[in-house]
Amino acid sequence: MGELGRVPVGIVGASGYGGVQLVRLLKEHPGVELVYLGGESSAGKPFSDLYPHLGHCVDLNIEPLDLDTIASRCKVVFLSLPNGLAYQMAPALVAKGCKVLDLSADYRFFDLETYQSWYGGDRADREIAATAAYGLPELYRDRIAEASLIGCAGCYPTASLLALSPLLKQGLILSETAIIDAKSGTSGGGRQAKTNLLLAEADNSLGPYGVGGRHRHTPEIEQVCSDLAGHEVRVQFTPHLIPMVRGILATVYATLRDPGLVREDLLTIYKAFYRSSPFVKMLPGGTYPQTKWACGTNLCYIGIEVDPRTDRVIVMSAIDNLVKGQAGQALQCLNLMMGWEETLGLPTMGFYP
Amino acid sequence: MGELGRVPVGIVGASGYGGVQLVRLLKEHPGVELVYLGGESSAGKPFSDLYPHLGHCVDLNIEPLDLDTIASRCKVVFLSLPNGLAYQMAPALVAKGCKVLDLSADYRFFDLETYQSWYGGDRADREIAATAAYGLPELYRDRIAEASLIGCAGCYPTASLLALSPLLKQGLILSETAIIDAKSGTSGGGRQAKTNLLLAEADNSLGPYGVGGRHRHTPEIEQVCSDLAGHEVRVQFTPHLIPMVRGILATVYATLRDPGLVREDLLTIYKAFYRSSPFVKMLPGGTYPQTKWACGTNLCYIGIEVDPRTDRVIVMSAIDNLVKGQAGQALQCLNLMMGWEETLGLPTMGFYP
Amino acid sequence: MGELGRVPVGIVGASGYGGVQLVRLLKEHPGVELVYLGGESSAGKPFSDLYPHLGHCVDLNIEPLDLDTIASRCKVVFLSLPNGLAYQMAPALVAKGCKVLDLSADYRFFDLETYQSWYGGDRADREIAATAAYGLPELYRDRIAEASLIGCAGCYPTASLLALSPLLKQGLILSETAIIDAKSGTSGGGRQAKTNLLLAEADNSLGPYGVGGRHRHTPEIEQVCSDLAGHEVRVQFTPHLIPMVRGILATVYATLRDPGLVREDLLTIYKAFYRSSPFVKMLPGGTYPQTKWACGTNLCYIGIEVDPRTDRVIVMSAIDNLVKGQAGQALQCLNLMMGWEETLGLPTMGFYP
Amino acid sequence: MGELGRVPVGIVGASGYGGVQLVRLLKEHPGVELVYLGGESSAGKPFSDLYPHLGHCVDLNIEPLDLDTIASRCKVVFLSLPNGLAYQMAPALVAKGCKVLDLSADYRFFDLETYQSWYGGDRADREIAATAAYGLPELYRDRIAEASLIGCAGCYPTASLLALSPLLKQGLILSETAIIDAKSGTSGGGRQAKTNLLLAEADNSLGPYGVGGRHRHTPEIEQVCSDLAGHEVRVQFTPHLIPMVRGILATVYATLRDPGLVREDLLTIYKAFYRSSPFVKMLPGGTYPQTKWACGTNLCYIGIEVDPRTDRVIVMSAIDNLVKGQAGQALQCLNLMMGWEETLGLPTMGFYP
Repeated sequence: MGELGRVPVGIVGASGYGGVQLVRLLKEHPGVELVYLGGESSAGKPFSDLYPHLGHCVDLNIEPLDLDTIASRCKVVFLSLPNGLAYQMAPALVAKGCKVLDLSADYRFFDLETYQSWYGGDRADREIAATAAYGLPELYRDRIAEASLIGCAGCYPTASLLALSPLLKQGLILSETAIIDAKSGTSGGGRQAKTNLLLAEADNSLGPYGVGGRHRHTPEIEQVCSDLAGHEVRVQFTPHLIPMVRGILATVYATLRDPGLVREDLLTIYKAFYRSSPFVKMLPGGTYPQTKWACGTNLCYIGIEVDPRTDRVIVMSAIDNLVKGQAGQALQCLNLMMGWEETLGLPTMGFYP
Repeated sequence: MGELGRVPVGIVGASGYGGVQLVRLLKEHPGVELVYLGGESSAGKPFSDLYPHLGHCVDLNIEPLDLDTIASRCKVVFLSLPNGLAYQMAPALVAKGCKVLDLSADYRFFDLETYQSWYGGDRADREIAATAAYGLPELYRDRIAEASLIGCAGCYPTASLLALSPLLKQGLILSETAIIDAKSGTSGGGRQAKTNLLLAEADNSLGPYGVGGRHRHTPEIEQVCSDLAGHEVRVQFTPHLIPMVRGILATVYATLRDPGLVREDLLTIYKAFYRSSPFVKMLPGGTYPQTKWACGTNLCYIGIEVDPRTDRVIVMSAIDNLVKGQAGQALQCLNLMMGWEETLGLPTMGFYP
Repeated sequence: MGELGRVPVGIVGASGYGGVQLVRLLKEHPGVELVYLGGESSAGKPFSDLYPHLGHCVDLNIEPLDLDTIASRCKVVFLSLPNGLAYQMAPALVAKGCKVLDLSADYRFFDLETYQSWYGGDRADREIAATAAYGLPELYRDRIAEASLIGCAGCYPTASLLALSPLLKQGLILSETAIIDAKSGTSGGGRQAKTNLLLAEADNSLGPYGVGGRHRHTPEIEQVCSDLAGHEVRVQFTPHLIPMVRGILATVYATLRDPGLVREDLLTIYKAFYRSSPFVKMLPGGTYPQTKWACGTNLCYIGIEVDPRTDRVIVMSAIDNLVKGQAGQALQCLNLMMGWEETLGLPTMGFYP
Repeated sequence: MGELGRVPVGIVGASGYGGVQLVRLLKEHPGVELVYLGGESSAGKPFSDLYPHLGHCVDLNIEPLDLDTIASRCKVVFLSLPNGLAYQMAPALVAKGCKVLDLSADYRFFDLETYQSWYGGDRADREIAATAAYGLPELYRDRIAEASLIGCAGCYPTASLLALSPLLKQGLILSETAIIDAKSGTSGGGRQAKTNLLLAEADNSLGPYGVGGRHRHTPEIEQVCSDLAGHEVRVQFTPHLIPMVRGILATVYATLRDPGLVREDLLTIYKAFYRSSPFVKMLPGGTYPQTKWACGTNLCYIGIEVDPRTDRVIVMSAIDNLVKGQAGQALQCLNLMMGWEETLGLPTMGFYP
């Protein structure tokens, strides 16, 4: 089971954009073999019905969801489902010995009350949920390596937290001043036929949503910020929809505790903080990230500026929301869980132009 | 000179995007007749060489720049030139009796020292500069009506100031907390062949520039903020380039002085502030502006949110950078200068989809 | 009923892109007053629920469909509905004295058998259908002027027929060699949430559909071509979906009957053919149309090239699919029906850039 | 020289889009090591000055052009220069023992007179030019394998010829009826700051160019068509600029010699023709290619339709212009020259969405 010692893996919910990105990454990863695709609405169809251009390399049918079947065939299962479904499957899969990486919000929260107040549902899986690691390797590398269940970090939280973490961890900012103005391509909305995501509506337009702390990624960001800072942190997070397919840029503002810090100080601090994080690329002073640079890669580009007139630091981070913000990050977590090189099978050269 | 009593107007520098937008608006304005187009590099060419699709409605040649000629034929002159050229022409034109509307930065500053420190040059036109009105009618309507020389507001400042003004004027925020995260389509970069504005580079990408107070619109925004607040105000202004042609969205953050204020209070305050401003459209609570709504119009859509968790107000404003942010605003100023209806000839129905 | 002698008009089906374009054109047209909006699914809602940015200028609710009400309040009714609905309403409206302009395919066919074989349905309205004029004013100006019921030409047929007509009318080509390779923006697909029209799918991609004579616009184009040529004409029509919002370009190929004809001959012939057609703009030799030139206008730009190596003529036409290809054309028809200037209230200056 | 037996390769002209695509493919190819980058205008700069996001994986400087240096360090040289420069360098490099793959038009022509009449120049390299193979492996696999100098096929010719070749080779069409309506993203225009390629101009627009046989790819396509057909073939080739970054779609029309042929017959013929061509993917009947499917890959997707009403075949082919149309194809040629697996190091899973 698994050619040449490759680990057999499966995906539940492969029809969306995260799913198809994951399929592509898994097919090119030397340590795994993709042996199973599962889904409800498209069960019975060949995968190539959903993505005709991949028929020549993915010769699998979407199978109906049966946990015994999945566990008997897969050592690793990625769950790429709408929020609220993973927690109905993950406990059984873990119990049957699978490593489970969930791309939804179900296992991202340290505290299920927070989850329930934002996502609803009635969680009976507290014990297993308590064993889940938050899937952002740059911050929780060790826990991920030891876990059997990962709640992979959200796309906006990934960009936001990689930008903010060194500042919070080292107490460099007045945490209550932190503002995250985030911008995302429309693929973040998923492969769902919504009017506002039509090209005719979304192209050549731009707008905010979930303003004033109303977006579900706010509590996710805040729990990690609080964990890093060692005290409760509240951030102002505002997402915007951008007329492009992929990419997230987070522009983060905060007031420095020590106004004497200059840009080069902060660059040094960031480089030290991320010295064991191969996917974080610190840009030289005066260079700011463009989302296209990260396109197709698992990288996060970070640029820093200090405004001495206002004592503020501005940190800008760019990722590909479907790779570092979703499928690539899950695979990075898997690499850690399996004891493989963290970078194994993950692209680092941007798809440009 | 002017059919049926229409006022004869000219444009110096009609080859750029602001210029062609102005041409279109002037051709559809019932009070004026476009009688002159002037330029250096394209002098001698018919306008339709620059914009072949407008040959049937603009039958003018680009003429070499001669101030006597211009003044003899035009009662009103729009200067749509790179920064640093208008102040070499405007004094003579005003002296010859023309009303002059400058779309560059040359006459936007209350204080020429600030201008010179950001734009260079050696200004000998202090006397005339002192008579110029800042061309943002919603804030300086009366001065504009009486002036002969207008320094039309910049595109980013227009969106930013319309969002911020009521808060500053009424002292509702801690002014040092004001952050403006602004996003603009690439037409703001002008009709210049720059590599970073190529479709192949700019499409499907997004990035900040001029970070940390380095963009020239920072001092322009700050002088008006200071004027409104009655004390010196510093803002954090960060522009971003968005993969679309037109549109600016400004997302403005500030901490409320009185944390008891709720969204509806602020909506009431804004509506009162802009009650005589026909182009400002306040959106109902929970609705946020999309730049496409303003596309092709002289409108500014403003949405407001309050986050009671952080005591912050978030104000979002959307304009078309080439209309309300440039050519339309100039025409709005002219309407005031001529004593015409402020809305005369200015579109208010968005080009959608 | 109509301010200052304006004709009261209504729209049934104002929620789509053709509908909102029509609303905008009608609001700016000096001869009409928009007094009624009707619809099924959105009945009861204010129009601004569908298009929040138009609330300040369109203060109408969507009303349920009642033919008596419509006829009592409107002298002119635009039907902007999916195919197959107009013929259930138009006969009664005409009988009650309304002028009816249908934007669907229902009244485009000279022969209802052809309609039924492509669109299905069971047409019992033969008598009234026989009185309908085909709404392409450049070809059927006189009939339109006298008709009470117009089947407005489709978007692709408009671009295709304006390119081909002079050649067919004058027998200049071997008609069986005519190939129309057409390209359209995605707004042609309507305001419907279809996966393939999502920005994430349609952006940065391009593909054909309805290949091999399978698109419903083929028989519509062929009936008019046959009418012009005086014998049955078959064309090869291939539509393509282009990653942009608006615009159609038709690239038409045909073999010249007389290989001695040169480009300038054909330009002369086209100019003569369209000498009374104010919306057709013939481009000078060597200039080819760009769809952006026509954006927002009721114009059709046509460029011509002859390849002496192959004895072929290539005719290229560009329109805005929502204006000349839909709402603008309907209004142009109305102008003729009312005896107004054909160009009244119709834009001719392209929205550029 | 070359780690672990990898072949040392260099690129002359790495600053453009073809160059950066080639860099990325070479860095991921297991058989080669990129050891040299050369250029004139950017000599002396690190590559990361041109593409800051690739600094972490390409640690090379652009070196001035010195043929001895290049030959001493590289076994394989890719020339990615404007037309007219390669033929001044290739003869010396080949003489010094290098394998040379030229991405320009310099070595594409079987006949230097044709080259000179379209591209100018005075070619003194007839002897070496005669040894060059036309770099389209699906058609000239054997010659490429034996050659030391490759004139890699152009982007439009690649898409056009892969669509047309089986028809011409087997005499299935009336060759004089062949029409190629081709559409390309703007990256085909290169990393040059031209006004018409600005996002503000090219986005949301579409237009033809080089109409009537005036584009330089016409003679290139015709020479290969003639070679395949065994007699002189003239085609009608019309390129169009599409508002997207990457991708070419060729829609090819021709009249069948035998009107009895149906779509399935042709699919069978195409599959047989391309049975040893791993990068050509024939689509099932009724499925038509979308350029996004090929994005980032070296594939060519081909769909076929027959219109029995007109006896025409319509063949549609989609490629990524920078991969199969440029850098990927060059690498595919190199694989053949080195006796490696043809598919080695070449992506086949489309970058989607």
